Amino acid sequence: MMVNGVPCRPIRLAEGGGGVEVIDQRRLPHEFVVVPLEGLADAAAAIRDMWVRGAPLIGATAACGVALHMDRDPSDAGLGEAVAVLGATRPTAVNLRWALEDMRARLAPLAPAARAAAAWTRAAAVCEEDVAINRAIGEHGLALIAAIAARKAGPVNILTHCNAGWLATVDWGTATAPIYLARERGIALHVWVDETRPRNQGAHLTAWELAAAGVPHRLVVDNAGGHLMQRGLVDMVIVGTDRTTAAGDVCNKIGTYLKALAARDCGVPFYVALPSPTIDWTLADGLSGIPIEERAGREVTHVQGRAADGAVTEVRICPDATAAANPAFDVTPARLVTALITERGVCPATAGGLAGLFPERAAVR
Amino acid sequence: MMVNGVPCRPIRLAEGGGGVEVIDQRRLPHEFVVVPLEGLADAAAAIRDMWVRGAPLIGATAACGVALHMDRDPSDAGLGEAVAVLGATRPTAVNLRWALEDMRARLAPLAPAARAAAAWTRAAAVCEEDVAINRAIGEHGLALIAAIAARKAGPVNILTHCNAGWLATVDWGTATAPIYLARERGIALHVWVDETRPRNQGAHLTAWELAAAGVPHRLVVDNAGGHLMQRGLVDMVIVGTDRTTAAGDVCNKIGTYLKALAARDCGVPFYVALPSPTIDWTLADGLSGIPIEERAGREVTHVQGRAADGAVTEVRICPDATAAANPAFDVTPARLVTALITERGVCPATAGGLAGLFPERAAVR
Repeated sequence: MMVNGVPCRPIRLAEGGGGVEVIDQRRLPHEFVVVPLEGLADAAAAIRDMWVRGAPLIGATAACGVALHMDRDPSDAGLGEAVAVLGATRPTAVNLRWALEDMRARLAPLAPAARAAAAWTRAAAVCEEDVAINRAIGEHGLALIAAIAARKAGPVNILTHCNAGWLATVDWGTATAPIYLARERGIALHVWVDETRPRNQGAHLTAWELAAAGVPHRLVVDNAGGHLMQRGLVDMVIVGTDRTTAAGDVCNKIGTYLKALAARDCGVPFYVALPSPTIDWTLADGLSGIPIEERAGREVTHVQGRAADGAVTEVRICPDATAAANPAFDVTPARLVTALITERGVCPATAGGLAGLFPERAAVR
Repeated sequence: MMVNGVPCRPIRLAEGGGGVEVIDQRRLPHEFVVVPLEGLADAAAAIRDMWVRGAPLIGATAACGVALHMDRDPSDAGLGEAVAVLGATRPTAVNLRWALEDMRARLAPLAPAARAAAAWTRAAAVCEEDVAINRAIGEHGLALIAAIAARKAGPVNILTHCNAGWLATVDWGTATAPIYLARERGIALHVWVDETRPRNQGAHLTAWELAAAGVPHRLVVDNAGGHLMQRGLVDMVIVGTDRTTAAGDVCNKIGTYLKALAARDCGVPFYVALPSPTIDWTLADGLSGIPIEERAGREVTHVQGRAADGAVTEVRICPDATAAANPAFDVTPARLVTALITERGVCPATAGGLAGLFPERAAVR
């Protein structure tokens, strides 16, 4: 996507491999900083400490992390170390595991001397495949937006939670891809941006992305979405996902389940934009099967923002002694999901729906 | 309630009338400051700018505001001015209207020279009635907590939203009154405290109250409640209300509706603690009838807390140009409410349920 007229991606590989740089998303929207990843430790820190986040971008960064380490130590031990270190960074997004297994399966059969070049080629391909997937999700989702636009006056009001934008992917985003294409096609839109506590990816990242793309939007607290739906102010909800089971249960940023409940209660369609690498074909039941990351309580007890003096600052919002719990994701049961928007089309959030679009994966399972 | 061994109320009248002081709740939990209300303008500012908040406390402060003005101008014009100025401060809580109508009805028939003394007497009575009501709500709610405690091992896990604590009333609180009584009776408890964006009354006030009372609790973001209920980590929800219709629709802090939806989906009982002055006997349908206050976008785009240097600071959490919408309340339909806890007992959230407990009010309607 363009930022101030310059094409921009949250991860960029050097031509021909050998180097990676990422936007440090912890500093957005107040500072736009690109940092190089110098090796495996940097790549792991970038994922663990959330310089990068979003399931597809985590997968792409992990692939690059393996490639960085193959430049240093392409031995079997080196490959094993890269996969182990990167695999331990975050538990919920299945793309991480998918990307690491893909890299290991391709590199392990090769002679060590051939691994670095092959790793960079594959990492670049993982990135470009993500762009193509998201673009295709955009086309399929665009049809859903266009159908709503055709039957109502005024802008299509879309609510989204967290950031499933281009900053969460290599480009286009997942939930935002249909929005950006609709904007290109001249469809009138307005996006309700959930703040998305505790890390505020909606306020920090989605609001910034939409402003850069010229998409009208307003920020709301996470508490507001139900009220907006009750009052007819939301035409559709589109969110991303960190892992979706073969039966259509959707694990996504904490709070997604609450919005899905409100959408059902108010008759608002609830869509999940779903690149196929986020499907966990080994799982059916999301509630029992998906590990939910518990993050530091400090994300809840403190909020980061820019103070009046311009400094990016953290403030404590509760008494000093207050303890917090911080589950980072929740699971929206498939029964609450109107449909899944994949790169191969739109399908019901059911085992049959996903198997119909991905018969080769469903059959393997 | 006690704070550091000292009995404490959020509003306190001087003995025999003539003066009022309140806790400036905008500065909690970081600073505990008591300020005098010097006259009508102070009382109106205290309500409008939320030095005090919470439906019962707003009603008590309004009664005191009328009394303050009767000391200065007890004429018919003065009484009318006090009612008009205080009535324009906030639109949603019906207790404000109730207290002002009560004061006007009692003072208007009196000779102006008799109004100030009568106003102070009545303002003090409004405060003491609120304490008695909340204490009675506590006894009825305690039975519900005790019943859960009797059939499970470990603490009773209660989720609450916003602050319906003693800081929202003259004492005891509404949603917290059963919790404080259960604590006194030795029932093991744990409270999940919703942060309650945008103004963070959960993080600022409820966490502070519960700590002062020695009630175990953890702070969570507003997004987390659905996940906690899905996982069986919530035994009951208790919230307050700013206005409840005669048919049992509950208007309360924005986000309450989302928690009620999750409670129903997960089979968790959802209770509303309800002093009868918050019942609007003139309304049945809450969605069409209750005005929802739209507050400044700055409450959404900025968060207040204490910085590392100890200063209470506001930080901006989104790009400079981001616009926000800020509806302050939502309406939970009666069908999602397990029961109402009133000072006269527990009843279904239906017209018949409320009429059974308050036949004299339901008949008037």
